[in-house]
Amino acid sequence: MHRPRRLPLLLLVLIGLLPAVARAQLPPPRFPSPHARPRAGVGGGVGGGYEFETRYFRQRLDHFSFSGEEEFFQQRYLVGRAGGWAGPGGPIFFYCGNEGDIAWFAANSGLVWEAAPRFAALVVFAEHRYYGESMPFGSKEKAYNSSRSMAYLTAEQALADYTVLLTDLKRNLSSESSPVVLFGGSYGGMLAAWMRLKYPHIAVGALASSAPILQFEDIVPDTIFYDLVSNDFKRESLSCFQTIKDSWKELDEQGNGQDGLLKLSKTFHLCQTLNTTGALSDWLSSAYSYLAMVDYPMPSEFLMPLPANPIKEVCRNIDKQPERSSILERIYAGVNIYYNYTGTVDCFDLDDDPHGMGGWDWQACTEMVMPMSSSEGLSMFPPDEFDYALYADDCVKNFGVRPRPRWISTEFGGHNISSVLEKFGSNIIFFNGLLDPWSGGGVLKNISDSVVAIVAPLGAHHIDLRPATKQDPDWLVSLRESELEIISGWLSDHYRARGGALFQRATNDDSAAS
Amino acid sequence: MHRPRRLPLLLLVLIGLLPAVARAQLPPPRFPSPHARPRAGVGGGVGGGYEFETRYFRQRLDHFSFSGEEEFFQQRYLVGRAGGWAGPGGPIFFYCGNEGDIAWFAANSGLVWEAAPRFAALVVFAEHRYYGESMPFGSKEKAYNSSRSMAYLTAEQALADYTVLLTDLKRNLSSESSPVVLFGGSYGGMLAAWMRLKYPHIAVGALASSAPILQFEDIVPDTIFYDLVSNDFKRESLSCFQTIKDSWKELDEQGNGQDGLLKLSKTFHLCQTLNTTGALSDWLSSAYSYLAMVDYPMPSEFLMPLPANPIKEVCRNIDKQPERSSILERIYAGVNIYYNYTGTVDCFDLDDDPHGMGGWDWQACTEMVMPMSSSEGLSMFPPDEFDYALYADDCVKNFGVRPRPRWISTEFGGHNISSVLEKFGSNIIFFNGLLDPWSGGGVLKNISDSVVAIVAPLGAHHIDLRPATKQDPDWLVSLRESELEIISGWLSDHYRARGGALFQRATNDDSAAS
Repeated sequence: MHRPRRLPLLLLVLIGLLPAVARAQLPPPRFPSPHARPRAGVGGGVGGGYEFETRYFRQRLDHFSFSGEEEFFQQRYLVGRAGGWAGPGGPIFFYCGNEGDIAWFAANSGLVWEAAPRFAALVVFAEHRYYGESMPFGSKEKAYNSSRSMAYLTAEQALADYTVLLTDLKRNLSSESSPVVLFGGSYGGMLAAWMRLKYPHIAVGALASSAPILQFEDIVPDTIFYDLVSNDFKRESLSCFQTIKDSWKELDEQGNGQDGLLKLSKTFHLCQTLNTTGALSDWLSSAYSYLAMVDYPMPSEFLMPLPANPIKEVCRNIDKQPERSSILERIYAGVNIYYNYTGTVDCFDLDDDPHGMGGWDWQACTEMVMPMSSSEGLSMFPPDEFDYALYADDCVKNFGVRPRPRWISTEFGGHNISSVLEKFGSNIIFFNGLLDPWSGGGVLKNISDSVVAIVAPLGAHHIDLRPATKQDPDWLVSLRESELEIISGWLSDHYRARGGALFQRATNDDSAAS
Repeated sequence: MHRPRRLPLLLLVLIGLLPAVARAQLPPPRFPSPHARPRAGVGGGVGGGYEFETRYFRQRLDHFSFSGEEEFFQQRYLVGRAGGWAGPGGPIFFYCGNEGDIAWFAANSGLVWEAAPRFAALVVFAEHRYYGESMPFGSKEKAYNSSRSMAYLTAEQALADYTVLLTDLKRNLSSESSPVVLFGGSYGGMLAAWMRLKYPHIAVGALASSAPILQFEDIVPDTIFYDLVSNDFKRESLSCFQTIKDSWKELDEQGNGQDGLLKLSKTFHLCQTLNTTGALSDWLSSAYSYLAMVDYPMPSEFLMPLPANPIKEVCRNIDKQPERSSILERIYAGVNIYYNYTGTVDCFDLDDDPHGMGGWDWQACTEMVMPMSSSEGLSMFPPDEFDYALYADDCVKNFGVRPRPRWISTEFGGHNISSVLEKFGSNIIFFNGLLDPWSGGGVLKNISDSVVAIVAPLGAHHIDLRPATKQDPDWLVSLRESELEIISGWLSDHYRARGGALFQRATNDDSAAS
């Protein structure tokens, strides 16, 4: 096991605090998140071609106490143009915002927009507190000022936000009887599933896409994430996998040699000379993890502009280098696909973290403690073990908070989830793509008739939610159709119980992506 | 409608803040709660003859935020002598403490103790935060100091307390797989039902006795409570009902006459001369409401020492007075049964509120807003309408907090509860006795196969939970048996799913009360 070393605060914040292993060799696995400001302006806009209005709701900062000193903040939410909505009593499709700007998630969750007309549903995307424009205390600077100001950045508070917002929205629309279907991907998918469980009176069902609700404590093996990333590379090319696996030692050795850091900086076209090889390792590992998440069979610009099947391309580049190429030259050729597919980058700045989210670092240091290790055998990453004590100490040092590593499973469950939910709860779809390393913490088996798992062996991170494209493979078209059939059943049940079909349902043909 | 008048703060606190009508003619309906300190000492004791150990758990004050300034308090809980427990993996019967000293609820919830041996279950009674000995900040004085210190007195925090306590307790007992059955009566019953819904992974089922989870907003008519109290008197004697109904005008007229307050004070044997007739009206109304709650068919000392069928006795006393008796003399004779059944009281002190609970006043001013009106037609109480604006203003004035009248139904549901729970949730018994005025806010119909209502037409407030007595009518013995059969089914399901019967089950005969 590598001895964890302590990084300076800045770097620690930049690379996130997730697993203690990050301070050894491994970067923190994070969920994908927006790397750019939203394309939509205030008051309305078009995200990914979807038309919506931007609204703000006066939201309570702390739902669970009554200090008498009430704090509120403006929570942003996007509402699709109401033209296609059935009107009062008609369905509402509600996306549970993740750890980032909501416009980005709206642009990347085409399924919600594209399915809405078929059900004459109103589309709502709600932004998560402390992200995007939904900042308590008036600004990000003030919201992120201290542990006192960040105290209310929790999943429970966010779920209560969505619940209060929906309740108010329905009342204002005179639409209290509307069935609400929750959507969410990644952390947003966890929120959608948890919200269906905690607030069944608010929503008739939830599509929880790529939601690793079991990635806590010892519910799943802590090596599963990196094993799955590694497997994505191994399935494309054993030599590619092996080159990456061999590269860490090579990196260390070169870094420790004469002018090693300078040489490494040149090999990898870095803008500035490295201070440690660790920063480079993290940069590489991070690319591999993200590549596994977005290993889609069509070109995408979700995180970075990428070709279809990006891991195949990365491995092809690693493998196809001239025979005399060194391991590190191959590695450089590989990650170029991720960091520079457009070929416009002259040099790379490792400090430039386009996916930086201080908010998620906080969440990882409070509730979202997901232990991550790298196994000696199956992983192409350097072996490392999760060291909780070190992890917790760093949270205290950097944020002034101590994590509660058992809180999530206490609050939301997780252990024996099948037996708990077999007789409790209903109407949840857990989607997972098996290429996605987060699928290791997902629900992969049907739990009951209505708490079901849809698994795509060739799918990556919430591919089902992505906008439809001409290149979508048949299995993807078909699984989206399965999801919508299930949702249709929830809505039919709802209206049947109320004695009538209040919503107009178009034919399936109308639901095709435009 | 009577114009609400403002009472001085002291009186307001004494009579509680529940309905605005309290400030007109009606006292606040409250749940029964302990009027005396527990009989059990620290470290162990016998409450109602049940043997337990007193323990304390270091509980987190705020489960839902992470300010970095962690506050903890000592939460008291009682654990039955473990001799009868099946051991690790065996059932745990967990009582969700109400708004009062837990030893009192333990002494008055005999069913839990008496049923435990039959299932070889471990008995745990957990005290609710801010009550009894479970005081944040080290003392009641400090805990009740201000809205800042009381901020965390909420149902959600209490549910999280129970969840965290149970999770820790099971771990310490190496008994993580133990099935937990929740019990609770009155507010404790609401907590038991909500806990089953919010934390299904913690408990396999809940017996929610006399839990008015629908007594919020407009879910049930706001006149139902006083109508039910009135009906309890009407069914015993129409003339008794009419005498009480006529008495309010009589009270007002006498109070307004020459030396009226002095005369009233003499008629009612008050220790001190009245300042207003309102205080006397409240004292009378309060007695009627409590009488309806504890209208048990056997003698009890739950709130006051009372005979069997106390309303029958009250009405008999009212009706049997000599014909020349005035209305108020009859009324005095009636309430004497409630306030002075033992005949030891020389004079009555209206300020002496044996059921005072500042904590519940706070809860009523934050989450627990239960609108209460008195109807012109069916009620024997003076007509009055719930005035929310006034209610809220008084909460601000007295506690520095503004209520959130819609929060409970937003957080826990309530509207259309049948359709929500028909397809969601399982394993809850809602017991209600129809003599109990709180049954108006209860679940009185089966919702699904496993979310069921047990209704006792002749039962009062959580009579099922009371210790068994020789005088118990057959219907009571039989409905307790039905409840235990259902609970037995939950436990069997649990063990069957785990492939074995780990707990010893005695024969039914063993379960008879000793």
